[in-house]
Amino acid sequence: MMHLKNLLNEPSVKVVAVADANLAQLSLPEQLQAKVYDDASDLLANPQVKAVCIFAPTNAHEGLVRAAANAGKHIFCEKPLSMAADEAVSLELLRTVKRTGVQLQIGFNRRFDPQFQMVHDQTAKAAPAERQVVKITSRDPDLLPHALIQKIGGLVFDFTMHDFDMARYLMGKNVIQVFATGSTLIDPTLREIDDVDTLATVLTFEDGSLAVIDNSRRAVYGYDQRVEVFGSFGMVKAENTSGYTVEAYTDTAIELPKPYPHFSSRYQSAYQAELRAFAHAIQVEEQVPVSGIDALMAQRVAIAAMTSLHTHLPVAVDPQVPVL
Amino acid sequence: MMHLKNLLNEPSVKVVAVADANLAQLSLPEQLQAKVYDDASDLLANPQVKAVCIFAPTNAHEGLVRAAANAGKHIFCEKPLSMAADEAVSLELLRTVKRTGVQLQIGFNRRFDPQFQMVHDQTAKAAPAERQVVKITSRDPDLLPHALIQKIGGLVFDFTMHDFDMARYLMGKNVIQVFATGSTLIDPTLREIDDVDTLATVLTFEDGSLAVIDNSRRAVYGYDQRVEVFGSFGMVKAENTSGYTVEAYTDTAIELPKPYPHFSSRYQSAYQAELRAFAHAIQVEEQVPVSGIDALMAQRVAIAAMTSLHTHLPVAVDPQVPVL
Amino acid sequence: MMHLKNLLNEPSVKVVAVADANLAQLSLPEQLQAKVYDDASDLLANPQVKAVCIFAPTNAHEGLVRAAANAGKHIFCEKPLSMAADEAVSLELLRTVKRTGVQLQIGFNRRFDPQFQMVHDQTAKAAPAERQVVKITSRDPDLLPHALIQKIGGLVFDFTMHDFDMARYLMGKNVIQVFATGSTLIDPTLREIDDVDTLATVLTFEDGSLAVIDNSRRAVYGYDQRVEVFGSFGMVKAENTSGYTVEAYTDTAIELPKPYPHFSSRYQSAYQAELRAFAHAIQVEEQVPVSGIDALMAQRVAIAAMTSLHTHLPVAVDPQVPVL
Amino acid sequence: MMHLKNLLNEPSVKVVAVADANLAQLSLPEQLQAKVYDDASDLLANPQVKAVCIFAPTNAHEGLVRAAANAGKHIFCEKPLSMAADEAVSLELLRTVKRTGVQLQIGFNRRFDPQFQMVHDQTAKAAPAERQVVKITSRDPDLLPHALIQKIGGLVFDFTMHDFDMARYLMGKNVIQVFATGSTLIDPTLREIDDVDTLATVLTFEDGSLAVIDNSRRAVYGYDQRVEVFGSFGMVKAENTSGYTVEAYTDTAIELPKPYPHFSSRYQSAYQAELRAFAHAIQVEEQVPVSGIDALMAQRVAIAAMTSLHTHLPVAVDPQVPVL
Repeated sequence: MMHLKNLLNEPSVKVVAVADANLAQLSLPEQLQAKVYDDASDLLANPQVKAVCIFAPTNAHEGLVRAAANAGKHIFCEKPLSMAADEAVSLELLRTVKRTGVQLQIGFNRRFDPQFQMVHDQTAKAAPAERQVVKITSRDPDLLPHALIQKIGGLVFDFTMHDFDMARYLMGKNVIQVFATGSTLIDPTLREIDDVDTLATVLTFEDGSLAVIDNSRRAVYGYDQRVEVFGSFGMVKAENTSGYTVEAYTDTAIELPKPYPHFSSRYQSAYQAELRAFAHAIQVEEQVPVSGIDALMAQRVAIAAMTSLHTHLPVAVDPQVPVL
Repeated sequence: MMHLKNLLNEPSVKVVAVADANLAQLSLPEQLQAKVYDDASDLLANPQVKAVCIFAPTNAHEGLVRAAANAGKHIFCEKPLSMAADEAVSLELLRTVKRTGVQLQIGFNRRFDPQFQMVHDQTAKAAPAERQVVKITSRDPDLLPHALIQKIGGLVFDFTMHDFDMARYLMGKNVIQVFATGSTLIDPTLREIDDVDTLATVLTFEDGSLAVIDNSRRAVYGYDQRVEVFGSFGMVKAENTSGYTVEAYTDTAIELPKPYPHFSSRYQSAYQAELRAFAHAIQVEEQVPVSGIDALMAQRVAIAAMTSLHTHLPVAVDPQVPVL
Repeated sequence: MMHLKNLLNEPSVKVVAVADANLAQLSLPEQLQAKVYDDASDLLANPQVKAVCIFAPTNAHEGLVRAAANAGKHIFCEKPLSMAADEAVSLELLRTVKRTGVQLQIGFNRRFDPQFQMVHDQTAKAAPAERQVVKITSRDPDLLPHALIQKIGGLVFDFTMHDFDMARYLMGKNVIQVFATGSTLIDPTLREIDDVDTLATVLTFEDGSLAVIDNSRRAVYGYDQRVEVFGSFGMVKAENTSGYTVEAYTDTAIELPKPYPHFSSRYQSAYQAELRAFAHAIQVEEQVPVSGIDALMAQRVAIAAMTSLHTHLPVAVDPQVPVL
Repeated sequence: MMHLKNLLNEPSVKVVAVADANLAQLSLPEQLQAKVYDDASDLLANPQVKAVCIFAPTNAHEGLVRAAANAGKHIFCEKPLSMAADEAVSLELLRTVKRTGVQLQIGFNRRFDPQFQMVHDQTAKAAPAERQVVKITSRDPDLLPHALIQKIGGLVFDFTMHDFDMARYLMGKNVIQVFATGSTLIDPTLREIDDVDTLATVLTFEDGSLAVIDNSRRAVYGYDQRVEVFGSFGMVKAENTSGYTVEAYTDTAIELPKPYPHFSSRYQSAYQAELRAFAHAIQVEEQVPVSGIDALMAQRVAIAAMTSLHTHLPVAVDPQVPVL
């Protein structure tokens, strides 16, 4: 619904159709003037639809992307491409998409966060070899229901996946090794569904430069999202933000507002910006800014990280970008 | 044009008509679907128009407000009500508005700034008597053309006016004395049009609490907008903001992004919020959040400040709110 | 006692004698190996004493400085030179000191604060004409006993005096006008001893540049000491400091440690540094860094400020430095 | 020499003797009034000496500690206890010390840093099980000469060793696994002496909680020293410090002073405080605050980290504290 509202706010976008299997349960925005389907295939058959945005549980991504591509619609889809812990599935899907000639943009929304974009732009002035260490802290405000985790993937596949993409984006290099170690310090029953709530990951890039990533499922102070790039030029880092610069001096402390509480508030402008960028690329017939290959490279690291988590060993990753 | 775009972005608002004397020179937004007039009186004659928003040079405010009120339209008007250095003109205007039964909201946009609202909300928990000092720093990024100053008023009347309202808003009290002293340190030719570019003002409130305000026309680092409220509870202050939390550590310094460069970027959300609040108040038939009395009380301080600036003496201000 | 300990910590200084009228009540530091007198004149008669440091109530300054000068001892004395609301007394005293050929350094300790020195050094690269506004916030953590105020002077004479010196030091110019307005918002009984607890002061310098100063006797969050210099170069400001960069993120706020609670902790290094500078200047026979003229110029502003406070009018100040 | 000056500044300490093999090359402080030896064994034979402070290259630690213990002197020694990549050597040494009945304090100076102490004290209110992740960033300002590295150990043994102790100190738990991966991104010739300049390390504690540590030999902006403890209570972190709160707003950026450039300035008060604590513990016959066991537990992690670095595999660590 958040994404739908973002699309409605985008002047250059016309929402001509919406499809949802549970249509009856949705309270659609009043200003929506669109065909409404309860079956996605009906939407894909609508010739007015030029491009589709897929906001569905991860386990539905693969089928929807394939169907949309075959229907000749440009595609925006959230990450990851598939739940499969096997890159071949995604690779085959990307080749299908390529054959159909449609464009596919992946929803790595954090690339559109103004903070992280500024870190990227300032450090990208230095050559990749000058970027030596990227540090990412990414902590969720609270645990997810086990049932949801089973639909969208565990900590590594659903959450750290974003950090793998961010690390690659900021460093401008591919990963050759991953070591991940995790624990259940918050919810021990997560072990029953083979998940962890606390994770540390070290990535090694092609040239020996490093990423250190730490994750948690529960930061009581909000949604903790920080990145830092270090190298020969110095360091550029983005701290958390509340949107406020208000400081309250009391008889006990100086108090600042907490960071944004949730991904929806923290990345509000990023979610809007990625859709705007998608619409723009389609309209001017340029390359979309985040490709299926980006999804595949992050998924590859995530699959290796899960192996590392299970085997307690570092796992090699192929840094070679596949040819579609 | 900025305000028009904000109105177009407001889902609950329908822009049915626009009037501008220089219509030919305007490039109106594409998505505008409205009647377009080159005479405001034609717009006021349009029965579809329920409320008007006046974004005109200060010297046109008085006539437009009067005409709109007489046409029975609710009114949003930027401050101040009139260029007259005589409160009686504004008072008579407010009484006219009252007689017509329409609502009038004044564009003290800074009251809708999230930073300043947080300062207000946190300190308003303390009784007015507990708020002892308010400090406001307000500096423009650059000089205005002399011709524009003559249309909209000088530093005190056009710029510090906002601070007078903010001081009263944050303190919850009325002013009984003002002392203002100014200089032309940036542009000595301002003296030719009886203006200054650098100003310090001290306000005394009814209960002896104080405001200190400093203004400048040229801050090379951007638009400098800070407030601070001090009292028995401690202090709450809002620092400048760039919207970014990015820190670059180099071999010479730690560098942070500059504050917003201009009122349009700094107060973007405030400008949007004040129009939303106006529309909402009209629609639900509630009191608008910033009244003509607020404009009059700020104008009263501004008139006294100009007298102080000319006489080099503190000037008494009537703290009594007039009965309309 | 704090100053005595600072002297004992200064390797280049040998404390050869101490005098105090209430000697019996003092618990002198163990490591002190010095003659101890209960009469200052005995100490001044000691030929081993090369220089004296006067840490006495303000109302004793004049007599002690005169006696020390006549005894041929170099002098460090806290501000102000005298309690007299008449500059002539101080002027005559400075001339006496000059005749004796000894050096006199005034204890404007804040000039030696590392924060304020950095502000000074960074802005002093700009010519005085480029420095347009200095802002000083100086707030004490709590009220002083009335009896003490009568010995050392009220808010203006004892406390704001420091700010007058700081404003002149940072701007590199002399004051031509002062307007001060104050209230008793914390302790109404201060009126009985002709004092205030909350004060706003505006200074005008020779070239029209401005100082705005605000003071309070009770900041519940500690000792609030901030300065800011604004001009054509931009702005340099020193925020409060706790000495800590620790941030605690909790479920309610981000909490930072409060500023230093008291002048003794806030200016610890400044107190040490001013004595070191005095000792050094005497030893290498250079000019001491803060002169009697500096004291006199600050006192001149303070006397005018008290007049302004009483008359509710701005008061002219002679910017001419007197010839001794 | 820095440490000698700190001892001379400590009022409760009397420096009775100094020994150095290269005595002729030293310019000892003027105020030093002590016996001077060129052989440490002569100093240890001096019956006036109650305790010794060992500031020598790491490869001399073992012999000097043993000799001092056998001479019945209390000992302050910098970390680590020995260069041996075999814990047994240190263990035997600690048992020797224990037999002689003297106390031994290890120079983990960072435990005495006010910033890190505040992080410790604020998070130690939570039980160890509530502390889930500790993050440490520790970067040196520049490369060390290869010859020096061979005397004091490489990045892990000399530098990260401090972080291993800090992690254990802040978490209040022992380590069971270490994974370290490093590169030579700054000076490739470091490979010739089996060292790295860039390192990422993940520690796992007994209860599954985690430490992530990143190190570099060259941060162009100064000596980068940060810690962060995360857990059920939220997060407490210490940012870098310059000692200044001065902000310069220019037409290009807001500039803050760089962090301290070097360990000697960053940890000045920590170095002083650890010696004061040592002297105090000896004088009041209490336990010294950092024991030989602390050194051994950090060394144990460092030895495992070096193995991990060479084998590219995680290495198990015995969390059991040995009995002396």
